[in-house]
Amino acid sequence: MAGVRIPFTGTNLSRPFTSPTPSAYLRPTIISGVAQNLSYWDSIHSDIDSHLKKVIPIREPISVFEPMHHLTFAAPKTTASALCVAACELVGGNREDAIVAASAIHLMHAAIYTHDHLMLSNSLQSNPETEPKISHRFGPNVELLTGDGILPFGFELLAGSMDPAGDNSDDILKVITEITRAVGSQGMVAGQVSDVEFDQLSGQTRRCLHGCGAACGAILGGGSHDEIEKLRRYGSIAGKIQGLLSEMDRNEGSKMQIAEKWRDLALKELEYFDSKKIEQISTLVRV
Amino acid sequence: MAGVRIPFTGTNLSRPFTSPTPSAYLRPTIISGVAQNLSYWDSIHSDIDSHLKKVIPIREPISVFEPMHHLTFAAPKTTASALCVAACELVGGNREDAIVAASAIHLMHAAIYTHDHLMLSNSLQSNPETEPKISHRFGPNVELLTGDGILPFGFELLAGSMDPAGDNSDDILKVITEITRAVGSQGMVAGQVSDVEFDQLSGQTRRCLHGCGAACGAILGGGSHDEIEKLRRYGSIAGKIQGLLSEMDRNEGSKMQIAEKWRDLALKELEYFDSKKIEQISTLVRV
Repeated sequence: MAGVRIPFTGTNLSRPFTSPTPSAYLRPTIISGVAQNLSYWDSIHSDIDSHLKKVIPIREPISVFEPMHHLTFAAPKTTASALCVAACELVGGNREDAIVAASAIHLMHAAIYTHDHLMLSNSLQSNPETEPKISHRFGPNVELLTGDGILPFGFELLAGSMDPAGDNSDDILKVITEITRAVGSQGMVAGQVSDVEFDQLSGQTRRCLHGCGAACGAILGGGSHDEIEKLRRYGSIAGKIQGLLSEMDRNEGSKMQIAEKWRDLALKELEYFDSKKIEQISTLVRV
Repeated sequence: MAGVRIPFTGTNLSRPFTSPTPSAYLRPTIISGVAQNLSYWDSIHSDIDSHLKKVIPIREPISVFEPMHHLTFAAPKTTASALCVAACELVGGNREDAIVAASAIHLMHAAIYTHDHLMLSNSLQSNPETEPKISHRFGPNVELLTGDGILPFGFELLAGSMDPAGDNSDDILKVITEITRAVGSQGMVAGQVSDVEFDQLSGQTRRCLHGCGAACGAILGGGSHDEIEKLRRYGSIAGKIQGLLSEMDRNEGSKMQIAEKWRDLALKELEYFDSKKIEQISTLVRV
């Protein structure tokens, strides 16, 4: 599953939460070595999808695994999980070292996404003007409990990825700490510090996930302390840009200028690395 | 914080989810060494409470930490977390070795409890005849997001309890795996296998937490494979008895006979251990 470097074909932040078309879910398992016609980011998403399909098959009991499978793949792709793989490869690691963590990050995102779109008894959560229309295949109780199950399942995957000799346990614990902080107290506090409403916290959490994803990938790829911290900052800014651009429709176009300023800040973090190696990861912040 | 052996004063399964009186939350930090007038179980709950108060203080930003603190302590005590400490002490470990895991188990329980009592837009969840009346200090959106934050925070505590030399990382990863299974896929599947409605799954998860709590304590106390498995079974049966007894009000009294049969099965698991050491842990299944 070593990374295949394919010319970038256009997956970037001006298409937030992009990549796989719905039909991608129907594709057979893709090993990146043979995915010749996929862009770099698409090939990463494809590998994460393949891993998730393997670990969450639709099996008995159907009433548990069908909603789990459905809600995992119903959540739009997040570049936070793709960043995890890209950061790992940038610091010299293999894709397979990061694929479990990237899958776990997608599961966190899917659990948050499911709960974001839960129909609560207050009307705040279902403002037709601001909320995207989501088709709910399952009742709110099933969506609530499945989200509650998906989140710890991500940690179960990570804890289970310890190699038999236990050589990687320290790195896995570091990654678990990173992810728990991003989706737990830190993600919630980050929202508050930015002075947003409680309702928007989960959006902030998603942005935290980008810095976290990049840091986790760098840890698992054997990156140095400096590499981990630079990639964390790169990921955080990429997440911020993505958040800004996703709101562009309902806001003034001058935000593009802010996005461009942030892009330059993000790219500055990458100057530390070999310029030949940053080509692909840097496409994430092209605006 | 070595375990203090105080004669048992009556906390057992005939008072499910019992122990600390509400005023217990106002007590100053109690180190079990000086808690001379507390029963064994109360002293454990008191130590878990002290640890949780230390790690979840009410601090800025208040709008994040107040609900987190409130919902952590609003959930009734669970003997699953106390079992974790008792099992650790039974196999020769120190209380402090298990207190973080026990706190994490309480946090899982608190997150599940919070979501169990969330007001969803369907009426199933709020049947006044079957659901206990819960006072909701916060809105459903705050309760949803806080529950989502409490759950990973438990894993954050565990991952952070790795000692600087990393000697205990394997045990911590084993404990994380145990807990994720109990609250994730396994807990959900256990509910299905028992052929209960999806709405009742979280109750099943609670029962899974008892076996998990006992196993985690035995792992952290340095127990052998046999000790871990026997204590897991003991905990699972204790959880089943607790579930049965909590439903006794609305069911026929003949269930007491079943509970007594299960008690005997549970006590059989303890025969493997030194009879002098099992006195306290065995009080959990006295019916």
